[in-house]
Amino acid sequence: MIRERLQALRNEMESRGIDLYVVPTADFHESEYVGDHFKARKFITGFTGSAGTAVITRTEAGLWTDGRYFVQAEAQLKDTTVTLYRMGEEGVPKADEFIEEKLPEGGTLGFDGRVINGAWGKKLAGIAEKKHGLLHMDEDLIDLIWTDRPALSKEPLFLLEEKYSGKSTADKLKELREAMEKEGAGYHILTSLYDIAWLLNVRGGDIEHVPVVLSYLAVTGTECIWFLQEEVVDEKTAVYLTENQITTRPYDAIYDYVAAIPEEAHVLMDQKTVNYRIAGSLKEGVTVVDRSNPTELMKAVKNPVEVDNTRIAHVKDGVAFTKFMYWLKTNIGKLPMTEISASDYLEERRREQEHFLDLSFSTISAYGPNAAMMHYSATPESDAELKPEGFLLVDSGGHYLEGTTDITRTMALGPVTDQMRAHFTAVCRSNLNLASARFLYGCTGYNLDILARGPLWDLGIDYRCGTGHGVGYILNVHESPNGFRWKIVPERSDSAPLEAGMITTDEPGVYLEGEYGIRTENELVCHRGEKNEYGQFMYFENITYAPIDLDAIDPEQMSGRERQMLNVYHAKVYETLSPYLTEEENEWLRRYTRAV
Amino acid sequence: MIRERLQALRNEMESRGIDLYVVPTADFHESEYVGDHFKARKFITGFTGSAGTAVITRTEAGLWTDGRYFVQAEAQLKDTTVTLYRMGEEGVPKADEFIEEKLPEGGTLGFDGRVINGAWGKKLAGIAEKKHGLLHMDEDLIDLIWTDRPALSKEPLFLLEEKYSGKSTADKLKELREAMEKEGAGYHILTSLYDIAWLLNVRGGDIEHVPVVLSYLAVTGTECIWFLQEEVVDEKTAVYLTENQITTRPYDAIYDYVAAIPEEAHVLMDQKTVNYRIAGSLKEGVTVVDRSNPTELMKAVKNPVEVDNTRIAHVKDGVAFTKFMYWLKTNIGKLPMTEISASDYLEERRREQEHFLDLSFSTISAYGPNAAMMHYSATPESDAELKPEGFLLVDSGGHYLEGTTDITRTMALGPVTDQMRAHFTAVCRSNLNLASARFLYGCTGYNLDILARGPLWDLGIDYRCGTGHGVGYILNVHESPNGFRWKIVPERSDSAPLEAGMITTDEPGVYLEGEYGIRTENELVCHRGEKNEYGQFMYFENITYAPIDLDAIDPEQMSGRERQMLNVYHAKVYETLSPYLTEEENEWLRRYTRAV
Repeated sequence: MIRERLQALRNEMESRGIDLYVVPTADFHESEYVGDHFKARKFITGFTGSAGTAVITRTEAGLWTDGRYFVQAEAQLKDTTVTLYRMGEEGVPKADEFIEEKLPEGGTLGFDGRVINGAWGKKLAGIAEKKHGLLHMDEDLIDLIWTDRPALSKEPLFLLEEKYSGKSTADKLKELREAMEKEGAGYHILTSLYDIAWLLNVRGGDIEHVPVVLSYLAVTGTECIWFLQEEVVDEKTAVYLTENQITTRPYDAIYDYVAAIPEEAHVLMDQKTVNYRIAGSLKEGVTVVDRSNPTELMKAVKNPVEVDNTRIAHVKDGVAFTKFMYWLKTNIGKLPMTEISASDYLEERRREQEHFLDLSFSTISAYGPNAAMMHYSATPESDAELKPEGFLLVDSGGHYLEGTTDITRTMALGPVTDQMRAHFTAVCRSNLNLASARFLYGCTGYNLDILARGPLWDLGIDYRCGTGHGVGYILNVHESPNGFRWKIVPERSDSAPLEAGMITTDEPGVYLEGEYGIRTENELVCHRGEKNEYGQFMYFENITYAPIDLDAIDPEQMSGRERQMLNVYHAKVYETLSPYLTEEENEWLRRYTRAV
Repeated sequence: MIRERLQALRNEMESRGIDLYVVPTADFHESEYVGDHFKARKFITGFTGSAGTAVITRTEAGLWTDGRYFVQAEAQLKDTTVTLYRMGEEGVPKADEFIEEKLPEGGTLGFDGRVINGAWGKKLAGIAEKKHGLLHMDEDLIDLIWTDRPALSKEPLFLLEEKYSGKSTADKLKELREAMEKEGAGYHILTSLYDIAWLLNVRGGDIEHVPVVLSYLAVTGTECIWFLQEEVVDEKTAVYLTENQITTRPYDAIYDYVAAIPEEAHVLMDQKTVNYRIAGSLKEGVTVVDRSNPTELMKAVKNPVEVDNTRIAHVKDGVAFTKFMYWLKTNIGKLPMTEISASDYLEERRREQEHFLDLSFSTISAYGPNAAMMHYSATPESDAELKPEGFLLVDSGGHYLEGTTDITRTMALGPVTDQMRAHFTAVCRSNLNLASARFLYGCTGYNLDILARGPLWDLGIDYRCGTGHGVGYILNVHESPNGFRWKIVPERSDSAPLEAGMITTDEPGVYLEGEYGIRTENELVCHRGEKNEYGQFMYFENITYAPIDLDAIDPEQMSGRERQMLNVYHAKVYETLSPYLTEEENEWLRRYTRAV
């Protein structure tokens, strides 16, 4: 099937004189996850992973993906004629290097300019120029051959009341316009779906588990124009938009709008997220102020209403998770369970909670060796049976009207080895040490990461990912610009100074291939502490409430301070959750939150 | 006197049509400390601090210096007509801003191009251009009016045998030429005195406590030309230079040499350290490869011979320091002592050691509140009497043929308060926690700094400086590009990944104005540890040997692991030093290195 699709694509390429065509994994908004309509790379290669870039020439096809997906991609690309390029491995050319090598002198490089960001588009244009070739970027060739392509998502939207958003759209727009003025920009083009949803206090459902509305936004000193599939605007929303002097236009009209911006204008837009066709639509004389969207930081710094609400969401989520954990730990070996049936049980507990909207991402429920794969997702084929032994790792979360959660617990389903216990205890220490950091304002995740990683580095172990990420407010569960990471990854925006109101996950882990995986994840709200002659001190508040499985903890391997931190945390868990649990659950919870 | 000097300078400025003249604190090599000949800024303002920039217009004069020197500068500038500009304070213009404001349209900006680095010179030239003015940079006006100016230093030099340097000059030159080739540079201009001394395996004495030779170096694929005051080259050195195909020319001939480099050449030189006159002497067509000097990293990564030798130097230094500490602790209150007499006693102990060359910097001996001033230097006027109470902080070090040391100990001379004990214990924990870090290769000081700072941040205390700096090998005691620091300071080059062989100080502290200062400083050699699937692990070896005063430690405030780290360290101190001490000293040392 893939061979036929590639042939069909090559026919279209040939008829247009295109020598090389690039198909990334992206929508028009640089969203982390994309809707079904946008799964063009999956369509053309057959590879279903969440990250990858396809490059097709007249005679070759290649797929670039990262270490998480090597095994899966190898299997899925079998017999497709698509070659797997393992990113990061020695001697493997990067996609851009491959493109430069394969594009013939004077050749034509093609891609859909709407799914390539401005910065990358510039680079590709540079390659074409170097080869004295041409760009073909105004056509989506995949669309021509993808006959049963899903339509653009057009889910209903809803307004977020101020008791949930904590700040009116009018105030947010005012602050944005102040930021534009500071940058000397009369126009601002905003294409990040998360930022638009936050700014307009709307939520939708156009990406699975990410409640956003497919749309673009243009803001000037006086106008705010929302480009979207206008059918989703109901009467109530229409009134709200009028009140806020926000006008709407069709989704695709953004391109004409951008093309009409006068030459003398200064346009604030983030080339990392605005797509290349938009960037290319600007008149030549227009000055681009290439900065992060001001809304990026504004939305990352949760306001007091958002923080208070998020605490409420976490109580609900903690109740659901703890009920699940109680059920799991008391019924394992008695009731039949699998990775999927367990995660279904957990989802039901979440759905029982008031104001539950959706899962915040596909639950990872991974038993035994499956948990060593950081991004394992159980399928009906892989779905492992849970036995009364070893570890089950569950990474999950929910969207509630009061906010978004992301929690991981690893639970001993029965006996564990000394090594498992030692690793579980170390992960617990890592989590607690970072959570209890006290630091001066100005610190970033790079400064603090070793507090979590240190206890594992002491054992000669590392986890090959960041320690934590920002969390959106009824938005993407992965949010910039805050995070914890030890090594600078230039393409990630997660190194901003930690500000009061930012919410970041704290999720160290141990992953032993073929054996087991352990991760303990809480969310931390950053707060201002004492201010004195040395500066403004900051600290974290732990807002995730669920027991850390004491069955897998060895208190002897913890310092007195660490034991105290764990005991204080567990006392808080009991105090917070017990009002919402049954007598039996509370009896169990008392045991699992006892002081050690 | 200063008024007369300023008038004389203004006369020279007027006769040349110069409107504004800049006098920084610098030699021709961007050395951290400068010889007496170069103290022009002190001459023209009367301010004796180690850092500051003077700007003189026809009617005004200003001095820019930092917080360490506000009190001193204010006193010394009194009645001089020179205005103090407190750097970093709100509303205070930067020197460059002042220059831009005061330089009249079409005016002439003057400075000695040899004492301004390439990067700053470019900036000043930009200001002159903006004002459609001129630069006057080929003359040292201070020299014209400074009648009794000390001559350029011309101290004897000596060759460092390979048993001390660990690598022949031929090998070092070969590696340097390989680095030049990699950068595509046919020429390399090296003006850093530390780098020249390291590369040529020579040491001199042209800066107090920094055994360097005033000189420049030009390296091509075939030539190596050393520009120096040729009188210092004795017969032995001449033979060595011939053997290594190194030719000499007069110190000042570098400028003509640079001017003669052909237009098509690529010249590797670091604009941050090469002076502006050299940069400006290049023909217009010459391509400058503006990179850190390759020798910077080469010399920071000590070779095994250097590391072994440095350990030997530290044993000698530890013996000297421990003898001093024994004498101090057993005689305080019995013999009369002052800050200076104590540091003299310590210097004598160092001078007794074989192969001692010099102090590696002016000893800081600071009693009581004096130690709260981080850069206090006792003068005959300030010299405090030591009493059997409170803390004495001594920060000192030596150059030996086997390497350079830098150690700080704070010693209780009698009773200390609970708060002093708590702070001393926290500083000790900070020091030990950083020293015992285990981390993956790629970490920089920014990743690790919180290990030291954390225990103090937990108490709401900070020290307003880095936690540690690189240490030269019989060179400057402050060496780039390694260090520990939590906040990026762009003008400091101390954030390189920690490499095996780098030596860095570990010196957290507490400084309470008007009360006391505490600092505990050891030196750490970085080593490669286990290499496994997660990467290359690294760790530190503590090479400073002297007791950390147990009289001021409260073991109750340390974790079990911290007490163990202290006990292991103290056992190592005793084992290492006791063979070189007297019976009485060892009896004392046993008590002061006992397990707690």
